Amino acid sequence: VLLHPYLLMNGTGNLMDFLDEPFPDVSTYEDFHTIDWLREKSRDTDRHRKITIKSKESYWELIKSLLDAWSGWVVMLLIGMLTGTLAGVIDLAVDWMTDLKEGVCLSAFYYSREQCCWTSNETTFDDRDKCPQWQKWAELMTGHSEGAGAYVLNYFLYVLWALLFSFLAVSLVRVFAPYACGSGIPEIKTILSGFIIRGYLGKWTLLIKTVTLVLAVSSGLSLGKEGPLVHVACCCGNLFCSLFSKYSKNEGKRREVLSAAAAAGVSVAFGAPIGGVLFSLEEVSYYFPLKTLWRSFFAALVAAFTLRAINPFGNSRLVLFYVEYHTPWYMAELVPFILLGVFGGLWGTLFIRGNIAWCRRRKTTLLGKYPVLEVIVITGITAVLAFPNPYTRRSTSELISELFNDCGALESSQLCDYVNNPNMSRPVDDIPDRPAGPGVYSALWQLALALIFKIVITIFTFGMKIPSGLFIPSMAVGAIAGRIVGIAVEQMAYHHHDWIIFKNWCRPGADCVTPGLYAMVGAAACLGGVTRMTVSLVVIMFELTGGLEYIVPLMAAAVTSKWVADAFGKEGIYESHIQLNGYPYLDVRDEFTHRTLATDVMRPRRSEPPLAVLTQDSTTVEDVETLIKDTDYNGFPVVVSRESERLIGFVQRRELTVAIKTARQKQDGVVSSSVVYFTEDNPQVAEACDPQPLKLRRILNLSPFTVTDHTPMETVVDIFRKLGLRQCLVTRSGRLLGIITKKDVLRHMAQMMNQDPESIMFN
Amino acid sequence: VLLHPYLLMNGTGNLMDFLDEPFPDVSTYEDFHTIDWLREKSRDTDRHRKITIKSKESYWELIKSLLDAWSGWVVMLLIGMLTGTLAGVIDLAVDWMTDLKEGVCLSAFYYSREQCCWTSNETTFDDRDKCPQWQKWAELMTGHSEGAGAYVLNYFLYVLWALLFSFLAVSLVRVFAPYACGSGIPEIKTILSGFIIRGYLGKWTLLIKTVTLVLAVSSGLSLGKEGPLVHVACCCGNLFCSLFSKYSKNEGKRREVLSAAAAAGVSVAFGAPIGGVLFSLEEVSYYFPLKTLWRSFFAALVAAFTLRAINPFGNSRLVLFYVEYHTPWYMAELVPFILLGVFGGLWGTLFIRGNIAWCRRRKTTLLGKYPVLEVIVITGITAVLAFPNPYTRRSTSELISELFNDCGALESSQLCDYVNNPNMSRPVDDIPDRPAGPGVYSALWQLALALIFKIVITIFTFGMKIPSGLFIPSMAVGAIAGRIVGIAVEQMAYHHHDWIIFKNWCRPGADCVTPGLYAMVGAAACLGGVTRMTVSLVVIMFELTGGLEYIVPLMAAAVTSKWVADAFGKEGIYESHIQLNGYPYLDVRDEFTHRTLATDVMRPRRSEPPLAVLTQDSTTVEDVETLIKDTDYNGFPVVVSRESERLIGFVQRRELTVAIKTARQKQDGVVSSSVVYFTEDNPQVAEACDPQPLKLRRILNLSPFTVTDHTPMETVVDIFRKLGLRQCLVTRSGRLLGIITKKDVLRHMAQMMNQDPESIMFN
Repeated sequence: VLLHPYLLMNGTGNLMDFLDEPFPDVSTYEDFHTIDWLREKSRDTDRHRKITIKSKESYWELIKSLLDAWSGWVVMLLIGMLTGTLAGVIDLAVDWMTDLKEGVCLSAFYYSREQCCWTSNETTFDDRDKCPQWQKWAELMTGHSEGAGAYVLNYFLYVLWALLFSFLAVSLVRVFAPYACGSGIPEIKTILSGFIIRGYLGKWTLLIKTVTLVLAVSSGLSLGKEGPLVHVACCCGNLFCSLFSKYSKNEGKRREVLSAAAAAGVSVAFGAPIGGVLFSLEEVSYYFPLKTLWRSFFAALVAAFTLRAINPFGNSRLVLFYVEYHTPWYMAELVPFILLGVFGGLWGTLFIRGNIAWCRRRKTTLLGKYPVLEVIVITGITAVLAFPNPYTRRSTSELISELFNDCGALESSQLCDYVNNPNMSRPVDDIPDRPAGPGVYSALWQLALALIFKIVITIFTFGMKIPSGLFIPSMAVGAIAGRIVGIAVEQMAYHHHDWIIFKNWCRPGADCVTPGLYAMVGAAACLGGVTRMTVSLVVIMFELTGGLEYIVPLMAAAVTSKWVADAFGKEGIYESHIQLNGYPYLDVRDEFTHRTLATDVMRPRRSEPPLAVLTQDSTTVEDVETLIKDTDYNGFPVVVSRESERLIGFVQRRELTVAIKTARQKQDGVVSSSVVYFTEDNPQVAEACDPQPLKLRRILNLSPFTVTDHTPMETVVDIFRKLGLRQCLVTRSGRLLGIITKKDVLRHMAQMMNQDPESIMFN
Repeated sequence: VLLHPYLLMNGTGNLMDFLDEPFPDVSTYEDFHTIDWLREKSRDTDRHRKITIKSKESYWELIKSLLDAWSGWVVMLLIGMLTGTLAGVIDLAVDWMTDLKEGVCLSAFYYSREQCCWTSNETTFDDRDKCPQWQKWAELMTGHSEGAGAYVLNYFLYVLWALLFSFLAVSLVRVFAPYACGSGIPEIKTILSGFIIRGYLGKWTLLIKTVTLVLAVSSGLSLGKEGPLVHVACCCGNLFCSLFSKYSKNEGKRREVLSAAAAAGVSVAFGAPIGGVLFSLEEVSYYFPLKTLWRSFFAALVAAFTLRAINPFGNSRLVLFYVEYHTPWYMAELVPFILLGVFGGLWGTLFIRGNIAWCRRRKTTLLGKYPVLEVIVITGITAVLAFPNPYTRRSTSELISELFNDCGALESSQLCDYVNNPNMSRPVDDIPDRPAGPGVYSALWQLALALIFKIVITIFTFGMKIPSGLFIPSMAVGAIAGRIVGIAVEQMAYHHHDWIIFKNWCRPGADCVTPGLYAMVGAAACLGGVTRMTVSLVVIMFELTGGLEYIVPLMAAAVTSKWVADAFGKEGIYESHIQLNGYPYLDVRDEFTHRTLATDVMRPRRSEPPLAVLTQDSTTVEDVETLIKDTDYNGFPVVVSRESERLIGFVQRRELTVAIKTARQKQDGVVSSSVVYFTEDNPQVAEACDPQPLKLRRILNLSPFTVTDHTPMETVVDIFRKLGLRQCLVTRSGRLLGIITKKDVLRHMAQMMNQDPESIMFN
């Protein structure tokens, strides 16, 4: 923490201020540096204290202090509203552009297929599929809607549109905002843990990411909008932070807002506000005080309601996939659910390993030099392979939606092509199990092909230089696998009522198995395997169904998938990407269990030159300037004398530089041979001819954080994690021995895990 | 943190162990003492490390290590199952005994009224009220069910049963388990923050609290079962901890289990698992790592499902108050909702102030000497006043349930006595607003009386020597007020369609206002005012209704009530009781914003004798023994010498006592004049005739936590809170100046808030 100004007044010494003006604000950090949480917190308390004192002076100040107290809520409101609006706009645009690949609405070109057929008066519910206002490209151009020629023309235009969209997306990202690519969640996790990446949450990134997200999703690539929406929401949060100095000038407070914004992002991505808050708490955030919990919840709700007011899906539902099941599940079904969990865990492992290997190859080989070409090629492959299969041709969220659905009596989908009992009087919701018709069997084949296609292509898609989320592709993989398993179990149960495993719970003529539930469980399992989310995953899924009874299947699958995936490697996809990029991220969940001590980690090592320190009353201005020039440390410990090595404080490099520069310019008599004093008492100037001393106690942090050399590293890691330190000094019996920075801690942890220590690039 | 045994091996010195046997386990803490979280965590890591190393030795050890890894989940499963079962049994018993006050079932005396009338075949749904199997006491004894005589007899027996139940409850608590009284949440919060209260979560408390909770609730007192259920769940958690040494021998790990158990308790109290987890996170827990979040969720779910399997309400609903509304709410209704929030905040303030004043009076005056009499008197007053009013005669949860309900067409309740439009064809769910009938008006009067009665009596009831929760009474107050406001708004809207405030949203013949929703909002507001819960409150209410759309009214009311109540005093009822009882609880939410420094807080003060320290190589065994005898400190810093005052470590009193006692008994040559050595190197015994030295470096904690004297207290408070320290040493330029204990921090915080510093009683 910094030395507080009041120390100057409270101190017992008669310290005079040689400088007329206050120091310029040196609170900002440099790019790719780590913030000091304790210091930020302390600065905020100071600010708050000043406002409280001032508020007693006049009514105007009181109003200003009230406005300041309310600004947090205002920011949340604004974030919620903008995030909800952006999500609505993105949904509408994606709908329209996805449909544009296949055809166009004649009544108004900016209508998506669904809107087009809705507004048309001529269509009833039944012949929505034959809506005349909507024409496929072949029909519009050649007048023929059937035949090989029309198919080829449609196919060609589908691929062409996809290539156009993805080319636009990657070009915009390349030219205007390189930070807009990827899902953004690994970087947001790192930023929230206290790292500075300038421009990552800027206005430009916000704009480009929103536009290119629409393009990328519409191009039909195997990616989703959920992760990037979190990034977009955080950009909104950052934008509104700049309106209030409380947040814009304090990196710690800013991160509280960003945590809440992440919750709002997930809230609109799935229509699950509680799940969003828990996602932010569990997956993204680092410092999450209770106040933030409450505000995140508010932001998430506002965002969800704004989205509902825009109503992009036209059904006034909040959630992305609304499902309603009519049958309970049975204990015996836990076996396939757990198998789906195992599949999810294996998929998670395969995806993470494959994707990381591919991304590493991209970083190290020529591949990385041609991002535009890569995107074009992958889009081309995706579009060419996707078109023939009806389950991959449409958008992935539509596919998931159909897979989750229970087959009602009115369902026209191929997946619901069951052989109906002619005795069944009228369509009811609670339809008994029926034998599968030919449509179901052909759908199964197509789904199996779609599954393989999705598994392979997603590995290569995630990490390209366009916005790409992996929630939707992961869920799609799980939903396809789940639906296949579900139909298999259903048909087994129908045809073999007498088998011992079905006997107890599935009588003939009853509705025993809901294949849609299997799809949902599979989706949860696969998402869990990739991201290692637990509570937030189950809660998001719970908010989708709204029924507590399906929590047990979801939990069983989520737990199994997490355990299976953890057995192959502890890290989820976000942590893996953080590591791949070498961000200095100190994971809250990593348990450090090694037997090393602070003395093993601290710098300087035995072979290294001694620690660069200042002495309290024997260093000259010139010495200090040399030290600043020769080293690049963030700060220097100040000791009583080089002999005693007793620590008295720590001075930040940045502040030292500014102080000396200012003194040289403004203070008479300060020359290179002036002695820098950090002592409390006025220095005794021995002879009159000596140069004027420079007193710098005001920039000295008198309470640097220290541990002894015998402190176990697990405790040191805990302290760094919980207090958010940048560095910590190591002492022994009061003598300064060395220093441990966050970078040292991370490098040591990586070493202990036998990993490449060079992967920690930044400070 | 303790010195780890491996330090002895790793150390550079050639330290020999003079003691043949390992020390006895001195890990336990004394009653009413604070635990050291860092030390507990470090001990658990050690344990884990040992198991990991052992597991590579043999298959048996591998299996043991796997069992150990799984024991957390097993404990959660057991807690969930036992908590769910107990909650079910309590619900059934309360139902039966509450009805017993009014009458008895002839077909089986152990049936509650509802069960009695269900099983009877003669009754249809319509004449359930005239169920012949169920007889009131007067009817059974005299044969007359009507008339003044029967009324008086029923009245008399109602009061008698109530007195009997409450007498039994208070006597059992007094004789067998004094800790079973109250809600238990303040104490659990304190325990979870790291305080030891032996027996508070014992088997005996569990048994007596369960039994007396049934008696207390059945007696008709204005109290609920929700808070005590959390206590019961934590007792279950503690019980199952003792099965596994991983939890029973580590106070830190034990608290993780207890946090999860608290979640399970709320989960069964309301049927809201997610709300339960958030309650534990927001309100109860202190140290809540992500692993605990996931396990709490599991325990809460298991508990909820066990309860549903028992199905005490006979409707296979999980939730305590199931409601389904058919109309949306309108923006204009936010005004009455916010007014209800204001009412909730005022009620919270009134309740907390009144109750605390009364409890203080109970502690300081003669009143506290007669707890049994107090309970009897309050029960008598409650029963005498409650019987005449139908809304207070029944159990409070039934009352809340009725108030929450929307008036359907089949509703027979007095509250639904509206004047029906004769043109209305058939009963539908979506009934338009109707004018109130005479039944509604008389119900309003009775509700108003019930409101005043509940407000007054609850203040005196909470804190008596019986188990008593305040969720249900608080919710009842809010629900009554809300329903009254709701009916008022409804009738205004019906009779004054043309008023400008109703014009926009309420056309004649529409169903505009749902009075039940107002009751729900009022209940949330009042509960929020008393407990200051926020997110968990809204989530619990959300789980009751299951509809996202009512979250905004609930949130508006909860936020308003919290702000209003906070304006009159920051502390909720639990924090107030913690303070009243003087528990050393360091609230995570308290912001410490004063400008004091560590030097202002540390002991010794200027006027006090110097700090009791040991020196590393010049203290004799006798000196140490004198120091132990003369002081009662928990431990002593060890310095290089009294002159240099350079700190080398900290030694625990307990370990020092044991070490010296053991050495005296087992080690030859250790006499009173032996010098105690804490140094690394072997002492240089100057002359052969000198007594054998006693080496105690192995019990020396070489990494005591230090701060400098200039550290701002806000940082010190933060460190104590986040790292869970017991004490912290204060140094200046490497010299030891003093010590700050948790007690000092709490006393200082209390002083700064101008409160009675003597309220901190325990260490």
